[in-house]
Amino acid sequence: MAGGVRKVYGSLECPNTLKVLACIFEHSLDFQFIPINLKEGEHKREPFLSLNPFGVVPVLEHDGYKQFECRAIIRAMAHEFSSSLQDNDLIYWDERKQAIVSNWVDVEDHKFEPPALELINELAIKPENGLEPDETVVAKAEAKLGAVLDVYEARLGKFKYLAADKFTIADLLHLPNLQSLLGTARGKKLIESRPKVSLWCSQILARPAWSSVLQMKNKPPQSTHL
Amino acid sequence: MAGGVRKVYGSLECPNTLKVLACIFEHSLDFQFIPINLKEGEHKREPFLSLNPFGVVPVLEHDGYKQFECRAIIRAMAHEFSSSLQDNDLIYWDERKQAIVSNWVDVEDHKFEPPALELINELAIKPENGLEPDETVVAKAEAKLGAVLDVYEARLGKFKYLAADKFTIADLLHLPNLQSLLGTARGKKLIESRPKVSLWCSQILARPAWSSVLQMKNKPPQSTHL
Repeated sequence: MAGGVRKVYGSLECPNTLKVLACIFEHSLDFQFIPINLKEGEHKREPFLSLNPFGVVPVLEHDGYKQFECRAIIRAMAHEFSSSLQDNDLIYWDERKQAIVSNWVDVEDHKFEPPALELINELAIKPENGLEPDETVVAKAEAKLGAVLDVYEARLGKFKYLAADKFTIADLLHLPNLQSLLGTARGKKLIESRPKVSLWCSQILARPAWSSVLQMKNKPPQSTHL
Repeated sequence: MAGGVRKVYGSLECPNTLKVLACIFEHSLDFQFIPINLKEGEHKREPFLSLNPFGVVPVLEHDGYKQFECRAIIRAMAHEFSSSLQDNDLIYWDERKQAIVSNWVDVEDHKFEPPALELINELAIKPENGLEPDETVVAKAEAKLGAVLDVYEARLGKFKYLAADKFTIADLLHLPNLQSLLGTARGKKLIESRPKVSLWCSQILARPAWSSVLQMKNKPPQSTHL
């Protein structure tokens, strides 16, 4: 397969890169990982800017196609490698059902991720770097995320997963941030105080594809430079 | 068609509602518009919360399906009413080509809209309400949006539209905010100082579907209450 190697340019510290990797492992696809050093600003200069003019990871390059928005990469991959007959597809081919998956993909994007990232920054990243969390920011983000998780708790009372009774890309997109939230006492409490959210969270984090991502994160592959 | 009327709950003051209406007019679909009074907080209480637990417009209700994220509504509608044979479809059926459309849909969402909304708020909404724009916010948003439009200028040197050589949902999503930016001196300058962006902008704003939206905005239909 000359020219056919699927290349993922990204950082194992970046949740959006991990989302794409989770999708790749869910579909058991071959790929090559090319680490981009964010601390050294490798994403803000050439040759990376030719892959993504906005200077953000991850980028997927395959057969001459370059894609650089993680949710777009995941949607396209799930469509490309799904068959209309398999119950374990991460999407639906029925437009009306897929419309609901799209709806919850955008909920993750617009409602869940912003306060989740704020909390992870305050409660995990800042302390790792010797900084104190800002209690005002934490309290605000906690209230916002709590309200979102209340909607999830009600939703998960009607369906096994967020968009439907099967695991879809809408659930997959939550994995990295749920994992990080669980690593903080206050994030853990937000999740575990909601029984249905807590069960959903354990179920999706237990997926073999996600274990493969964590294994890769803990033992990064031999570096291939850009 | 009992139960088959497509209902759009939204506000003609809300860009996301206008995006959905543009998509409906592009596909010449019948619909009923149900105005939601945002100033009176109608979106934050029942019965609206049963349509969207997050309390945000627009919502599309059709045959028992409820969708409440505008990009999800637009993606689904464009897929449902496209045929693989028509050049004027707003999407592609080829997964790789549609992947690129998805990419630019997310660019509008994550890169274009945030600084565009900040500028519109400072340069149009605040003055309409007798408030002064905050020059620091304006300067920052202007720089951000300018950098995004520089990427668009380069992109539009390669393709007629953002994602491809045809008009797609990625272009459509820009309509309301481009229209509002053109209504401010500084927004107009940001657009018109880039020849390819300027041409693209005139072309997409001239689409009959967008004229129908503006006509509806200027002469709202007889109110149908929630």
